[in-house]
Amino acid sequence: MREILRPLYREGRALRLLDQRLLPSREIWLTLEKPAEIAVAIRELAVRGAPAIGVAAAYGAAFSLRSGRTTPPEERFQTARGLLASTRPTAVNLFAALERMQTRFSQVRGRPEEEIESALIVEADAVAAEDIEACLRIGRLGAALLEPGSTVMTHCNAGALATAGYGTALGVIRGAIEAGRPVRVLASETRPFLQGARLTAWELARDGIPVEVITDNMGGHFLSRGGVSAVIVGADRIAANGDTANKIGTYSLAVLAKENSVPFYVAAPTTTVDLACPEGSAIPIEERSSGEVLSIAGQSIAPPGVTARYVAFDVTPARYITAIITDQGICRPPYTESLARAVASASSGKL
Amino acid sequence: MREILRPLYREGRALRLLDQRLLPSREIWLTLEKPAEIAVAIRELAVRGAPAIGVAAAYGAAFSLRSGRTTPPEERFQTARGLLASTRPTAVNLFAALERMQTRFSQVRGRPEEEIESALIVEADAVAAEDIEACLRIGRLGAALLEPGSTVMTHCNAGALATAGYGTALGVIRGAIEAGRPVRVLASETRPFLQGARLTAWELARDGIPVEVITDNMGGHFLSRGGVSAVIVGADRIAANGDTANKIGTYSLAVLAKENSVPFYVAAPTTTVDLACPEGSAIPIEERSSGEVLSIAGQSIAPPGVTARYVAFDVTPARYITAIITDQGICRPPYTESLARAVASASSGKL
Repeated sequence: MREILRPLYREGRALRLLDQRLLPSREIWLTLEKPAEIAVAIRELAVRGAPAIGVAAAYGAAFSLRSGRTTPPEERFQTARGLLASTRPTAVNLFAALERMQTRFSQVRGRPEEEIESALIVEADAVAAEDIEACLRIGRLGAALLEPGSTVMTHCNAGALATAGYGTALGVIRGAIEAGRPVRVLASETRPFLQGARLTAWELARDGIPVEVITDNMGGHFLSRGGVSAVIVGADRIAANGDTANKIGTYSLAVLAKENSVPFYVAAPTTTVDLACPEGSAIPIEERSSGEVLSIAGQSIAPPGVTARYVAFDVTPARYITAIITDQGICRPPYTESLARAVASASSGKL
Repeated sequence: MREILRPLYREGRALRLLDQRLLPSREIWLTLEKPAEIAVAIRELAVRGAPAIGVAAAYGAAFSLRSGRTTPPEERFQTARGLLASTRPTAVNLFAALERMQTRFSQVRGRPEEEIESALIVEADAVAAEDIEACLRIGRLGAALLEPGSTVMTHCNAGALATAGYGTALGVIRGAIEAGRPVRVLASETRPFLQGARLTAWELARDGIPVEVITDNMGGHFLSRGGVSAVIVGADRIAANGDTANKIGTYSLAVLAKENSVPFYVAAPTTTVDLACPEGSAIPIEERSSGEVLSIAGQSIAPPGVTARYVAFDVTPARYITAIITDQGICRPPYTESLARAVASASSGKL
């Protein structure tokens, strides 16, 4: 396997970020130095994927003291934090990362500005490094769930591009292959942003992992015809009871997997578990502009005046999920207990 | 409601056909006079939808004597019939219409060529007229299943554009509205050909019927959130036991509707019922070129070298179907009996 793809990383005083709006036709790296630039990159999907958004937000907060030197550091930090928190509502990693940066800021508040910035940058680097480490662990743990020769269906992109590197669902794929268990992937294209066709196919092909693309409406057919060994997806937020918010279409695949006795796995770092959220109905679901549905490649696909809905995520009730693969172990029902244990284990590891 | 849209009809010695590849941005009518031209129009989706394909094929057979006058009429007829039968495998209306034209040809075989052609054209005209009549009956019968104020989800295009006029699933929508029961429509876009976003939205908007477009991966979410009163789809072939082949994605919506206790209806003329086909596994499923999945509006959406699958139809087992709305009545389980009765009733009506 090639060197791990890191779609966003710090280089000196800037965040370097692979623009995911342009893949696979163009590989353009952005250089972002201000919180506002990073907020725009998150909102407009230059970076997406819950763990990657968390990392980007951490750097946004770390860079917050640089401008507006006429106001106190606390005010600059809080302004940036508010701006970053307002970009997208569903992925909990965004809020968890900002909370972590807030904690660090509180610890160094009052010190010289260079010291504060330095401490914040070290903290953001840690968010990124721990995310890659979590993905590698998810990959090693999840690999055991896949028999050699398996065909794994995935949705959207829960890969290197959705994290600081290696990936969650695609981390399990990589982990299986590294453990000598060859697998192939069936990737649903994931309209409207086409993360499956554009991003998952791109990063798997880059690593020489066999992948075929299907349209979103083909998932049920392939699950019903046999030949799919498992479905593995990522997550944007996992409630305490295991209900999982993820890219729109995940719920449908989970129901169809259960109907056809195919195991359905969620792969996510413990930073995606939100124990403060009791169940799926409490997860805020983002609805984006319908224009993103009604035109493809700049061409309108529906007649003038027709409206559309763009619900960006759905919630899969825990009863459809066979297991949740985290960096702290594979959680099984009842999730209220297993997820709480995993989160506690992650916290104790850091202390 | 405006005058019924007839997407294909005979004008003198030619078939006039609204090119469905270009809608909604352009309304271009083709004028086709030869079986080979009509075969290309079917194969390349200028005309699609099981009943409409049947009508087009009937005219293709009717125009078969015009060229190659050095060979006997029988040979010309059979060549055209073979060519038309080879265009697409799943929709049974194609084969039923050609069978009907064959029967008529056998009755007039040996008469002067002009008389044969005239008889064949009258027969093709009857196929078209009976299809519209069947759709109107489906609309009247199906309307009773919808409460005023219902939101109906549909998939692909089972509308006027898929028939000689009025539509099957959308015929039920029109029938409800004409019966004073206002309904609104949630149309899944139906990748890769986008029949939902392009065609269903276009013809409903034309008739002033409220319609919103969703991507294919949103169907489950909307079914689970309440607010959808029923799903109504068309059919390409219905087996004797009620198993139904229809546009890819139909099976998924049927499973998701059942999981959420939303009634799932198939609307189709009895010409779509294939009593010779005992069950869904015997229905041939077309697989088309993966290029149609991998590029949108001329732009590639996946990296070079990545492959795709384009399974054009799936089979929905009868156990997920609440009722099948035909021109001869609403068929309920056990379908083996109710469908046989409907087909017998249609035959006796013609005798």
